Amino acid sequence: MSYHPVLLAGGWRPAQASGSFRAENPATGELLPDEFPISAWADCETALAAATQAAYLLRQTPPASIARFLNGFADRIEARKVELVEAAHAETALPKAPRLAEVELPRTTGQLRQAAAVVLEGSWALPTIDTRLNIRSLLGPIGPVLIFGPNNFPFAYNGVAGSDFASAIAAGNPVIAKAHPCHPLTSKLLAEAACAALLESGLPLTAVQMLYHLAPEDGVRCVTDRRLSAIGFTGSRAAGLKLKAAADAVGKPIYLEMSSLNPVLILPGALAERGAKIAEELAASCLLASGQFCTSPGLTVLIASHEADNFIADVKARLEGASIPPLLGSGVARNLAASVETLRQAGAELLTGGVPLAGNRFANTLLRASGEAFLAAPEQLQTEAFGNASLIVVVRDAGEAAQVLEHMEGNLTGSIYSDTRGGDDPLYAQLAPRLRARVGRLLNDKMPTGVAVTAAMNHGGPFPATGHPGFTAVGFPAAFRRFAMLQCFDNVRPHRLPAALQNQNPHGSTWRLIDGTWSQQNIPS
Amino acid sequence: MSYHPVLLAGGWRPAQASGSFRAENPATGELLPDEFPISAWADCETALAAATQAAYLLRQTPPASIARFLNGFADRIEARKVELVEAAHAETALPKAPRLAEVELPRTTGQLRQAAAVVLEGSWALPTIDTRLNIRSLLGPIGPVLIFGPNNFPFAYNGVAGSDFASAIAAGNPVIAKAHPCHPLTSKLLAEAACAALLESGLPLTAVQMLYHLAPEDGVRCVTDRRLSAIGFTGSRAAGLKLKAAADAVGKPIYLEMSSLNPVLILPGALAERGAKIAEELAASCLLASGQFCTSPGLTVLIASHEADNFIADVKARLEGASIPPLLGSGVARNLAASVETLRQAGAELLTGGVPLAGNRFANTLLRASGEAFLAAPEQLQTEAFGNASLIVVVRDAGEAAQVLEHMEGNLTGSIYSDTRGGDDPLYAQLAPRLRARVGRLLNDKMPTGVAVTAAMNHGGPFPATGHPGFTAVGFPAAFRRFAMLQCFDNVRPHRLPAALQNQNPHGSTWRLIDGTWSQQNIPS
Repeated sequence: MSYHPVLLAGGWRPAQASGSFRAENPATGELLPDEFPISAWADCETALAAATQAAYLLRQTPPASIARFLNGFADRIEARKVELVEAAHAETALPKAPRLAEVELPRTTGQLRQAAAVVLEGSWALPTIDTRLNIRSLLGPIGPVLIFGPNNFPFAYNGVAGSDFASAIAAGNPVIAKAHPCHPLTSKLLAEAACAALLESGLPLTAVQMLYHLAPEDGVRCVTDRRLSAIGFTGSRAAGLKLKAAADAVGKPIYLEMSSLNPVLILPGALAERGAKIAEELAASCLLASGQFCTSPGLTVLIASHEADNFIADVKARLEGASIPPLLGSGVARNLAASVETLRQAGAELLTGGVPLAGNRFANTLLRASGEAFLAAPEQLQTEAFGNASLIVVVRDAGEAAQVLEHMEGNLTGSIYSDTRGGDDPLYAQLAPRLRARVGRLLNDKMPTGVAVTAAMNHGGPFPATGHPGFTAVGFPAAFRRFAMLQCFDNVRPHRLPAALQNQNPHGSTWRLIDGTWSQQNIPS
Repeated sequence: MSYHPVLLAGGWRPAQASGSFRAENPATGELLPDEFPISAWADCETALAAATQAAYLLRQTPPASIARFLNGFADRIEARKVELVEAAHAETALPKAPRLAEVELPRTTGQLRQAAAVVLEGSWALPTIDTRLNIRSLLGPIGPVLIFGPNNFPFAYNGVAGSDFASAIAAGNPVIAKAHPCHPLTSKLLAEAACAALLESGLPLTAVQMLYHLAPEDGVRCVTDRRLSAIGFTGSRAAGLKLKAAADAVGKPIYLEMSSLNPVLILPGALAERGAKIAEELAASCLLASGQFCTSPGLTVLIASHEADNFIADVKARLEGASIPPLLGSGVARNLAASVETLRQAGAELLTGGVPLAGNRFANTLLRASGEAFLAAPEQLQTEAFGNASLIVVVRDAGEAAQVLEHMEGNLTGSIYSDTRGGDDPLYAQLAPRLRARVGRLLNDKMPTGVAVTAAMNHGGPFPATGHPGFTAVGFPAAFRRFAMLQCFDNVRPHRLPAALQNQNPHGSTWRLIDGTWSQQNIPS
């Protein structure tokens, strides 16, 4: 049988395979024609050895070369846009336009180019210099990084092209990408573009490697291997927690994005003032990409009232009237059905939907629970129903709302809608600090589903949304810092220092904390 | 029986004790007169509940009040200097002068005052503002922090006064300190000073709490309690790993400083040029505080030569001729003897010392192993012998040196001595990148035992020296960032933003990344 080759140790080569697989057309359930290998441990071994060498070479590579690679990679992706969109559509059933061609692909190339600009500017590493003691430090490369990409963004979070990839390379590290088995051909095309860009940029060819699929135990073995320095993972909580346990046991940084309900709290004044408009926003946000966004609003909290009941009826009607595209894969549909069942068992009432439909689809689903029910089973009622389903929790009063927020797990986002005339402000003051402590991004009067790729973005949050509340997966320069270690140089001779720590500011552009003051100046020699 | 009270929920009160203990005079082994409680879980419960409330109050406390507390605390410590030095000397046997009175106490007050200045300046939180999208973020308070202090620095790393404490408070978090049972009276005096400073500063009185001692299982239970947000720990690897496992299982940030051999690599040119001077530096560094520093040089690597043999003989003679003060406690002496025995069993030859002496002392100890022996048992030969013992590994050649470095665990520091005329530079180029990847602070021509409290310091490093290579325990502002979470405010109304993210720069002093450029300017409203 002929498989697609893997990208290892500087080139495409036949895999040492333990088996093979084909991706599924989610809309029909039929297997796609291309056959891909499941790599055996021998491929991981090759990747780890090559990445170790690449890490030493990359430490000597100037930031300009890394930036050239990132920009060139973006160009190469654009040059193959038609092919990429075709492949991703076949493998994910996501619409070619606007989603894949006009939103996700430009976002991906935009991320790579933003990362290139931030690498060149250089301040991301927080270079810090104490001239009197001649102690200097910065955030420097951590070493080989393994990146697991998710199923829901074939371009923008792909292990070989997405934000984790851009961050790890930008920080000066080689990447071993583990593609998601839902979209292997898309990943292969992206890896080909990366390869071409490597050749042109002067980076070691071993700086980027890719495997399509692995046995779970080999994934764990890679994570614990002493040659690997850090891990990026986007995917399910179950898989993420297994990798986290393995990484934790050997004290290795692992950055996970696992699950999030993205609670939306709608205060009474807002409901009275503009309930219909918010209902429209909530329904639209829930159904974006069939709810298969990490920031999909899975849990809304309302204080019981006549307006709250009207609001719920309105959202229900909107969900019932909306179209139902296929989900990303048959696994997603199965998990969604199981999660909705868990919510019902835990005391949530099914208002609409809850049933699988032909063509790998699931009826748009809305559930309702009381604050009392939530507080009786907070863990079960925070089960993530990844897909087009959402739960509304109706609490008795502000005090119960506070209790619900205090029992909330860590989330990527939390939104609060309040009236525009300040009537909700006392309630906001009481509840916002509780939500603030449990989310990475706090929104006002806005649904969480737009994740802007910008410096101030935080696409992160407390456990179990991620593994560490200090970091973000989206937004440069902050996202780079996940794949860096703090490197101090104490009395190190000038010619041995990294360029960013030498007396001369490398391009004049880098901000450095010199003797307590941020500055772009050179240090007099 | 009358115990000293604990500092809980805003004041001194009798402990809910499961037992009691007395500290030991390390020089005589006799128990000191004061009786201290071992807190039962009820005290932890009280502390966690009070810290939760304190966390909400601290979020509304202006940075100026936090700075006032840190400065006032430093003043109060100085006012009680004689008493503090007396207590610490009785409990640790460390010399009153210069060590306690002239070095460690001023370092401690200096840390608190530096932290105050950095809080006021405000840039540590990396405020980031995208005006076009109105997305703003900063590193904000993470919530209640539990700090475990170590035995070896009764002031500068004390859970209720040291660098972890200053960092956690500076970042806006309440602290629950777990004092080290080796120096409870010192800790009580420090906590009294903290209390007095709280009263004057306007901080909630519950912002600082302290327990003297806990059952290990209650420590673990605290770590996993949902009301606790982060943990700082300095101590033994065994205790640290237990707490780390507990924190990891619930996805909670824990910053550990556990153990470090601080390898010193002396290249042949340096040995030929100034071997005697380096031998003097090494012996002095090994014996500083009887080797009871986290940065004590526990492992030296030499390439075999006649000069190397002379160097070893020189170090041995210096250790044999040096005085031998008592160790910090009988536990330290027992562990040191056991570690030296482990090293011998693993193939290290005892050159001198290796025997316990009267008065809780241990003979100054030097061991030697070949590179081959090291590579045959790298784990055992990296056993930390905390105290006045050190191992020299003599490798065959540069290739074997590279292998030894590649088998090195994570360390706080790594030093390389090279000749002053560039003869060692090729060897440096080959070996330094390998050491760089395994240490937090790389030194040239300098022993690791001085840890300057300065912005560029990194007192951190890869596992198992710490739990995460991106952070430092010493040096502000970087050390603050351990006890912070990334907080994004997306479309949040202006009056609800933290001061550092409002259009007006709070004091005009804070550097903020505004639309990609670092600036101290206001944003036009």
